[in-house]
Amino acid sequence: MLPFRRVAIIGMGLIGSSVARAVRTHMPTVALVAHDADAAVRDRVLELGLADDVTDNAGAAVVDADLVILAVPLGAFAAVGAEIADELAPGAVISDVGSAKQSVIDALLPLLPPGVQLVPAHPVAGTERSGPDAGFASLFDGRWCIITPVDGVNSPAVQRVSDFWTRLGSKVEVMDARHHDMVLAVTSHIPHLIAYSIVGTAADLEDVTRGEVIKYSAGGFRDFTRIAASDPTMWRDVFLTNRDAVLDVLGRVSEDIAALQRAIRWSDGEALHKRFTQSRDIRRAIVEAGQDTDEPDFGRGHG
Amino acid sequence: MLPFRRVAIIGMGLIGSSVARAVRTHMPTVALVAHDADAAVRDRVLELGLADDVTDNAGAAVVDADLVILAVPLGAFAAVGAEIADELAPGAVISDVGSAKQSVIDALLPLLPPGVQLVPAHPVAGTERSGPDAGFASLFDGRWCIITPVDGVNSPAVQRVSDFWTRLGSKVEVMDARHHDMVLAVTSHIPHLIAYSIVGTAADLEDVTRGEVIKYSAGGFRDFTRIAASDPTMWRDVFLTNRDAVLDVLGRVSEDIAALQRAIRWSDGEALHKRFTQSRDIRRAIVEAGQDTDEPDFGRGHG
Repeated sequence: MLPFRRVAIIGMGLIGSSVARAVRTHMPTVALVAHDADAAVRDRVLELGLADDVTDNAGAAVVDADLVILAVPLGAFAAVGAEIADELAPGAVISDVGSAKQSVIDALLPLLPPGVQLVPAHPVAGTERSGPDAGFASLFDGRWCIITPVDGVNSPAVQRVSDFWTRLGSKVEVMDARHHDMVLAVTSHIPHLIAYSIVGTAADLEDVTRGEVIKYSAGGFRDFTRIAASDPTMWRDVFLTNRDAVLDVLGRVSEDIAALQRAIRWSDGEALHKRFTQSRDIRRAIVEAGQDTDEPDFGRGHG
Repeated sequence: MLPFRRVAIIGMGLIGSSVARAVRTHMPTVALVAHDADAAVRDRVLELGLADDVTDNAGAAVVDADLVILAVPLGAFAAVGAEIADELAPGAVISDVGSAKQSVIDALLPLLPPGVQLVPAHPVAGTERSGPDAGFASLFDGRWCIITPVDGVNSPAVQRVSDFWTRLGSKVEVMDARHHDMVLAVTSHIPHLIAYSIVGTAADLEDVTRGEVIKYSAGGFRDFTRIAASDPTMWRDVFLTNRDAVLDVLGRVSEDIAALQRAIRWSDGEALHKRFTQSRDIRRAIVEAGQDTDEPDFGRGHG
């Protein structure tokens, strides 16, 4: 039995449009209604045929939907929540795809009418591209989707959202929202912040030109630029909403960089070698867990 | 006309063995002699047929060679230089593949007999793999090779080394050694240092388990682990030999990270958005310059 019959997706960027495509592929009888705040995106969604109906405002999209998925930047949750609250059907489940979870609960829970159930979710999947053309149906295949129930308790609504993501190809994990935020600060938010920062540093140097940075980026720098090409608005909101966990981990990162800096200054080769040796095991485990390809250099063409 | 007739390669890891394979492919009549300090590597080089002759000591390898390429970690240059100095043929050219260049000049120049010419070179190419099995002939195809002549002057020896790398498929650039070291600190050394550091930080946290880091690494972290899987000895030596440039750039990096940290703490969304927006242009330019693939997510399989 399908977990939901009518799904409304608010926000049709990379993730929202991928959810729409994946629903079409895996649950073709589900009715899909979409809304995006950007009129150009709405037009494109119609052209691409990604939904059965595209509404001009968020409230109209959620009428009669038994699942509403917010796929907007985290900073827009309170406003979108206010727009849709009065239109939500009794018994509807409201979920999302946000990269930070406690802030989603804080923003939405006070707005929801009784009988509507909030089940926050985070598919850990994506690319550096943005917009409705960047999405694809297999984005979630084999990827983790983390569900963070409001009170930590499993419920029928949690089970239905879990079924939904399993049907889209994901592996589902249930986790406390605050723990999720700490785990993702480490595995996603901090890497993005550092990548953004270093790409900016490199572009701003006086002694090395931007052309040189681009030309010789194959030495390692280009790996950082991929994730730093991600949507700036989405990421701004991630850092503002997951502030505490990000600042917590960032303190550790700065401390560890300072330790390596000191080892270099004092020519402590042993400390450097020890630190560098540990990293290989982590890489191996990530490849073994199927979380990355084992092709050297990401299988980039050589020649 | 071939730029060299007999090439000796000291150090048969990823780069040395790739040079050997590329010479075989592009200049099959060139005589190849190889040496590696590790007996197991020497055996493997013989098994793989990567050289016409494999010698037990470095000095024996360079006898009669008109080109000697040092492909050992930067910390070994002075010792290897001392081993081979007396055996170098008059008129021989000595070159290398090291990732820092001023230190190569400082280590080798005092040791070389008159008539032997030092032409340092750095092919900006590689993968995260190590050892003679990791090499391949097309590694240098379309990649930059930076030559840093000792006195900044072009000479017939510089021209011959340039011809050599062009035949291996590289694009050659001539640059001052100290400028090279600054450019590579930005484009390669600092990204590796930061990647090593963050992978270590993530592995050491108390609140987030190593298993969670591995499981949810698709959020961005896994991009960092690739370059952090590189050879620890090679990289230790890069940081110790290119210390000044690395510390210089690292100071800027820390400053820029601190600025983003402050913007997050004070919820300065505008500052974050501005910084994040700049990065996309750099990424686009790298892809346009042919320095990276434009496939989203490095073309990793989804499903």
